[in-house]
Amino acid sequence: MEVVNRYVATRHHVEGAPTEADFEVREETLRWAPDSGEVLVRNLYVSIDPYQLNRMKRSSASHLAVDGVLPGQRITSYAAGEVVASACAEYAAGDVVAGVLGWEEYTLFKPSPGVLMSKVDAGGGFPLSHHMSVLGTSGMTAYAGLFEVCKPVKKGEKVFVSAASGSVGNLVGQFAKLAGCYVVGCAGTTAKVDLLTDKLGFDAAFNYKEEPDLKSALARHFPDGIDICFENVGGEMLEAALANMSVHGRVALSGAIAEYTGEGRRAVPDLLEMIYKRITVRGFFAWDFLPRFAEFGVVVGGWVRDGKVKVVEDVSHGLDSVPAAFAALFRGQNVGKKLVKLA
Amino acid sequence: MEVVNRYVATRHHVEGAPTEADFEVREETLRWAPDSGEVLVRNLYVSIDPYQLNRMKRSSASHLAVDGVLPGQRITSYAAGEVVASACAEYAAGDVVAGVLGWEEYTLFKPSPGVLMSKVDAGGGFPLSHHMSVLGTSGMTAYAGLFEVCKPVKKGEKVFVSAASGSVGNLVGQFAKLAGCYVVGCAGTTAKVDLLTDKLGFDAAFNYKEEPDLKSALARHFPDGIDICFENVGGEMLEAALANMSVHGRVALSGAIAEYTGEGRRAVPDLLEMIYKRITVRGFFAWDFLPRFAEFGVVVGGWVRDGKVKVVEDVSHGLDSVPAAFAALFRGQNVGKKLVKLA
Repeated sequence: MEVVNRYVATRHHVEGAPTEADFEVREETLRWAPDSGEVLVRNLYVSIDPYQLNRMKRSSASHLAVDGVLPGQRITSYAAGEVVASACAEYAAGDVVAGVLGWEEYTLFKPSPGVLMSKVDAGGGFPLSHHMSVLGTSGMTAYAGLFEVCKPVKKGEKVFVSAASGSVGNLVGQFAKLAGCYVVGCAGTTAKVDLLTDKLGFDAAFNYKEEPDLKSALARHFPDGIDICFENVGGEMLEAALANMSVHGRVALSGAIAEYTGEGRRAVPDLLEMIYKRITVRGFFAWDFLPRFAEFGVVVGGWVRDGKVKVVEDVSHGLDSVPAAFAALFRGQNVGKKLVKLA
Repeated sequence: MEVVNRYVATRHHVEGAPTEADFEVREETLRWAPDSGEVLVRNLYVSIDPYQLNRMKRSSASHLAVDGVLPGQRITSYAAGEVVASACAEYAAGDVVAGVLGWEEYTLFKPSPGVLMSKVDAGGGFPLSHHMSVLGTSGMTAYAGLFEVCKPVKKGEKVFVSAASGSVGNLVGQFAKLAGCYVVGCAGTTAKVDLLTDKLGFDAAFNYKEEPDLKSALARHFPDGIDICFENVGGEMLEAALANMSVHGRVALSGAIAEYTGEGRRAVPDLLEMIYKRITVRGFFAWDFLPRFAEFGVVVGGWVRDGKVKVVEDVSHGLDSVPAAFAALFRGQNVGKKLVKLA
């Protein structure tokens, strides 16, 4: 079987904030054969995530963990799709899968333990997009970062979430509320701040763009200090959070979007504060906690079903909208999980 | 009973690298009464530790954890001494104790759960000075930092120790060798480097003053990355170590002597490295692990008795030598644990 695949590629390595002009949509013919051992998937939703920028750089710490993106080549990405043809017993045509596919209309993959892929359980009753947001990588990042890295140990612990209206941040805040924490988030528009407090149950939120001094803003919201900081931004935001941690405070370093583009000032932590307050800062990946993925699906699926967790998705349409959707992430234009729906 | 106590005090808050001129020796009369509930101790050894500088500043994160030092006032310090008079059933004249006493010839204290103090078991057969070094705070810092914070999990893990000939660093390296690790230390003189490799069993060591680029020096010593970094220095040293960590590397932040004096450049960690390598940086105090102190004494006491751990002490004599001994720490002039022997 042959299909014409349209895929998004970079035109060159991308070093600063991305723009649509850094990308192009290319075409290729994919050939699937019954003896290939391969599975051909028609993608239905692709995930748009800030970390992809690090893969697009010529050189980046990202390359230690995941292959860099080469100009002109397809870009792997978490996505969901429908199996069109399968030369492998585990999958059959018509199955819906979620895992590492690509920013493209079709993906051909060969199942192996190193390829993150799972069949979507249609019996769960969730819209497919949820498997790309709250029940996918973003949800697992929030879940693992909060419960495995930060470990709220007692009711009422004070949690700060940066980029709190983003794909991961909004879930961290909602999960932390369910764990009995006091949660403050920050975001970059009034509408996002209102969403956090009015719809998502955050105890408080503030617009960092309206704060001349982030340290003071956090001191105002956390007079007794931050016990748990879930960090998605880096730079001055992390530095301000570190200056406001309480004794034995824990920082989960999930992302550093302010540093991905190389703009802005890097965080310069005060080591004396880190020592005397015995602060832990830990970088992590959701997938280091893969053994908890099944539990995560049950727990968070239950919360969503019971209406305890609201799902915030921001969906664009068509493969051609991927570059704009991606560039918009770095201008803070998404609310919740950014997805592109194909087909 | 009355005794004339000579004590070391600061003349003013100390903000930069300390000099002898920042201190003076003062006299006072201490009065002990049988109904006071107090214990009068004649101090025999006092501990000279870099962290005291942070207490002497007008403002410091140190003050969150331990009282600041006020000009003209006595300076509490870990020390060992002999009980001269006791109005408390737990202690008797002639007992030898180690704990929080002071940079002074006599200390009057009232036992309470908040006062760190223990009787020295003469049956152990160790010189009293060892209870101030390998069996005291320095040893416990090394032990807790290595085994509780860094947790070597498999043989052959690669350990980097900064300020490796210092009071804590030399023990971290020796303990890590006993745990089956590969250990590299850095120090500031050829003699110290030789001590580490020739006497203390470090696999390698280097003189950081002879390295134009600390990152390159560490890359040379750790071509496969640093699994465990025990950090005593901070600033550029920590930044270089962070740039050389391996995936899932752990940094125990024990001290940051380069930052105590406010000199030098602060560490500016690369957050992308911290995230993609999933690095943990954790500030800690030995005394947060107090429940393991008894075990520590048994284990490390055994190692010392069996000659598996060498004890490196650097002893000055007389209370008047305290200011010079303290100032010398910040010029890297001590080798091993710095103590002042009184009486």
